Amino acid sequence: MTRGYTIPIGGAEEKMRTPAILARFVGLCGGERARIAVVPTASMLQTTGRKYEIVFRRLKVASVTVLPIETRADAARSAYVDALDGVDGVFLTGGNQLRLSTTLGGTPFAARLIERHAGAGLHVAGTSAGAAVMSEHMIAFGDDGGTPRADIVTLAPGLGLTGLAIIDQHFRQRDRLGRLLTALSYNPSFVGIGLDEDTAAFIGPDDTIVVAGSGAITVVDPSEVSYTSMDSANRSDPVSVLDVRLHILTDGARYDLRRRVATPPPAVVELPPSADALDEPVVSQAST
Amino acid sequence: MTRGYTIPIGGAEEKMRTPAILARFVGLCGGERARIAVVPTASMLQTTGRKYEIVFRRLKVASVTVLPIETRADAARSAYVDALDGVDGVFLTGGNQLRLSTTLGGTPFAARLIERHAGAGLHVAGTSAGAAVMSEHMIAFGDDGGTPRADIVTLAPGLGLTGLAIIDQHFRQRDRLGRLLTALSYNPSFVGIGLDEDTAAFIGPDDTIVVAGSGAITVVDPSEVSYTSMDSANRSDPVSVLDVRLHILTDGARYDLRRRVATPPPAVVELPPSADALDEPVVSQAST
Repeated sequence: MTRGYTIPIGGAEEKMRTPAILARFVGLCGGERARIAVVPTASMLQTTGRKYEIVFRRLKVASVTVLPIETRADAARSAYVDALDGVDGVFLTGGNQLRLSTTLGGTPFAARLIERHAGAGLHVAGTSAGAAVMSEHMIAFGDDGGTPRADIVTLAPGLGLTGLAIIDQHFRQRDRLGRLLTALSYNPSFVGIGLDEDTAAFIGPDDTIVVAGSGAITVVDPSEVSYTSMDSANRSDPVSVLDVRLHILTDGARYDLRRRVATPPPAVVELPPSADALDEPVVSQAST
Repeated sequence: MTRGYTIPIGGAEEKMRTPAILARFVGLCGGERARIAVVPTASMLQTTGRKYEIVFRRLKVASVTVLPIETRADAARSAYVDALDGVDGVFLTGGNQLRLSTTLGGTPFAARLIERHAGAGLHVAGTSAGAAVMSEHMIAFGDDGGTPRADIVTLAPGLGLTGLAIIDQHFRQRDRLGRLLTALSYNPSFVGIGLDEDTAAFIGPDDTIVVAGSGAITVVDPSEVSYTSMDSANRSDPVSVLDVRLHILTDGARYDLRRRVATPPPAVVELPPSADALDEPVVSQAST
């Protein structure tokens, strides 16, 4: 079998009127046949799991189960670990990504999740903290602001569902370009993905991202960086970074994480008022 | 072919009278047939490469070449990249690990190094900064002291020659248990390896470490950690970590990174003054 989709969401995704991102996740998981597990571990609120249970029920999935993993002992319980064998998709809620990594890291639950995602087609979506933890190199916390500084960000090991990208979330809303640039400047071998709220990256088994949602994804590609002063900067100094390639991608746009190539959203076919009025449909380029 | 050895050294290894660690590295690489490349990128001193060239010549290797990579453009030069195809071992000098990761990360030189180490049996040794950069999750910098605190350490992506361990160096000399515990507490799924000076971990293709040198290796195994307060701690707070397993391993001891099992140094066979004096050799257990 193939790898499942990896779906980081920038937080604050629409849940009620037009939950486009969550509906698309459900569609990937089989639509009305979809079996979903919700992992509310990142959240300190007892109501978070239940909230998503209601949202997924409204999307008419076949089953939705909340796995209330709160401790490392919970993450070793076979009832929770084995539950992963019977679902098509896992949803990691928001909260604190260090709560996810400290509670799940190195446990049987994390091992099974990683294994089934890699080889059994299990799709994994996560919002906010649930998105951050998908990186191998997870942004644990940091300061806001656009300019990179040597100590502006703290990285920690995440679940590593993608080894090609470092993910950040609430990106435009919390002015996080500086901390993402800092993370990438330490070692310019990953792609930075800054997710706006209500915006998701659907990362396929071929490592191509399709953007969905009402905001944008900021892709930061440091592969051509010719110079950074990161190694000589004092901790709070601003840091030089030269030759970063940046893409702002909106709904429908694509990004190939292996070849590092961006593709605009497909041309939108707007049907004229009467389909007979023209021989050819009007094609307009969507804005990127 | 198989993976080469990964050999992080804790810094300040003996180079003159009895360079046991470097001699063992040379032995692995073929002894008098060994072809060695020295990468002095971490160092700001122009003399570092030449210094190791002299040391390796004194150890009677067949050839030793210094690759003076100073910029990311250097790390794309085919003369340096292709040089990796003609050597048995690479030695990464000390200096600043962020200089290694910022200069080599994501470049053709790093890609070739990783590829030949993984599949062509290329052995890679590194001391101090050259040891730190071998981790997938590299300790870039941090504060000294024995107690973990949430912001005591800054992780950055390293070269990833081992995905199982987080390496720290000058370990006892600079009192670094606190920052290593902090790094492991973020996500208890790696093994911490704290290397004293003049002490090395020879990590084989089977992910078993053999300890060599005059100091000790502190192995920190967080796989049974039952609780950490890392996710709720303020940045400078001390952090609770419960149920860490610790091993102090000296010359000849082993550690299996996959099964997480430590083995004491083998019993030392001490020949009596005259080999005829006893039927059986005297076996004494070396201290651990």
